Amino acid sequence: MDAQARAVDTETRAERSDHGAIRLWLRMLATNRLVEMRTRRLLLERFGTTLPRFDLMAQLERFPGGLRMSELSKRMMVTGGNVTGITDLLEREGLVERAADPDDRRALRVRLTRAGRRAFAAMAAEHERWIIEAFAPLAAREMAAMAALLARLKTHVRSLEGPDA
Amino acid sequence: MDAQARAVDTETRAERSDHGAIRLWLRMLATNRLVEMRTRRLLLERFGTTLPRFDLMAQLERFPGGLRMSELSKRMMVTGGNVTGITDLLEREGLVERAADPDDRRALRVRLTRAGRRAFAAMAAEHERWIIEAFAPLAAREMAAMAALLARLKTHVRSLEGPDA
Repeated sequence: MDAQARAVDTETRAERSDHGAIRLWLRMLATNRLVEMRTRRLLLERFGTTLPRFDLMAQLERFPGGLRMSELSKRMMVTGGNVTGITDLLEREGLVERAADPDDRRALRVRLTRAGRRAFAAMAAEHERWIIEAFAPLAAREMAAMAALLARLKTHVRSLEGPDA
Repeated sequence: MDAQARAVDTETRAERSDHGAIRLWLRMLATNRLVEMRTRRLLLERFGTTLPRFDLMAQLERFPGGLRMSELSKRMMVTGGNVTGITDLLEREGLVERAADPDDRRALRVRLTRAGRRAFAAMAAEHERWIIEAFAPLAAREMAAMAALLARLKTHVRSLEGPDA
């Protein structure tokens, strides 16, 4: 099959198939990108910090006992950050600390320090305001409806990826 | 205000405020991450390529006359990729080329080569199948409803960011 034939075939199939999924996915990506870019800009302007740093602290905040690096990596919501590098930076600034894992003395857990919890609380309060402001045009029942559809989507994609996803 | 008081205050406000927006945003992030991770894995397994490379080629595919680097960066759907670095790699592989901009001979545009268009068509066809498969649990009218809500969200967030967003 030459290039011309393949290109036509792809286009033809795209026209016949349900294009709703692709269009929705591109819109999800674009919306996410917009909200994420705004969050990145505001975090930098208001707190001189980055989204991966904020994300890492947000994950730790939910686990006062700390997380192993592998768990922390899995829980990060944004991609592209180097978890070890970010942890090193935050540790140097006294916002996180590494401590021996009580379940396995050879392993380490990362957790927020007292200063880290305080810094995160200030950022999280502002972040919440930015998100509420971004989602303002949607009514509560519209947000609930979208959240329910996303829950079904998540469950399905997880099942496609197998038990470890 | 000490750390303790601030933490309690944040929590208290979070409980009182409309938490729907935060919960929805976290679910959007998590769903996006799942679909994106699956796409990254499949692109690597099936085509030995990365999502930023696929994304860059997808943007160029829509502009047969090519795009300037600045336009290309703005249009990328995934963040974290180095657009110049990816372009250099794809150029070395003969999939994209830089050519003088007909509107401004001192500027360059990047565009897909014939080989690039062929390679992209093959990837795009598979990518479409993966996305349709991921979104299979949603009915067409549910996808349309979600797309409509996202459109309102996008317009609003763009307006918060000003005319250049």
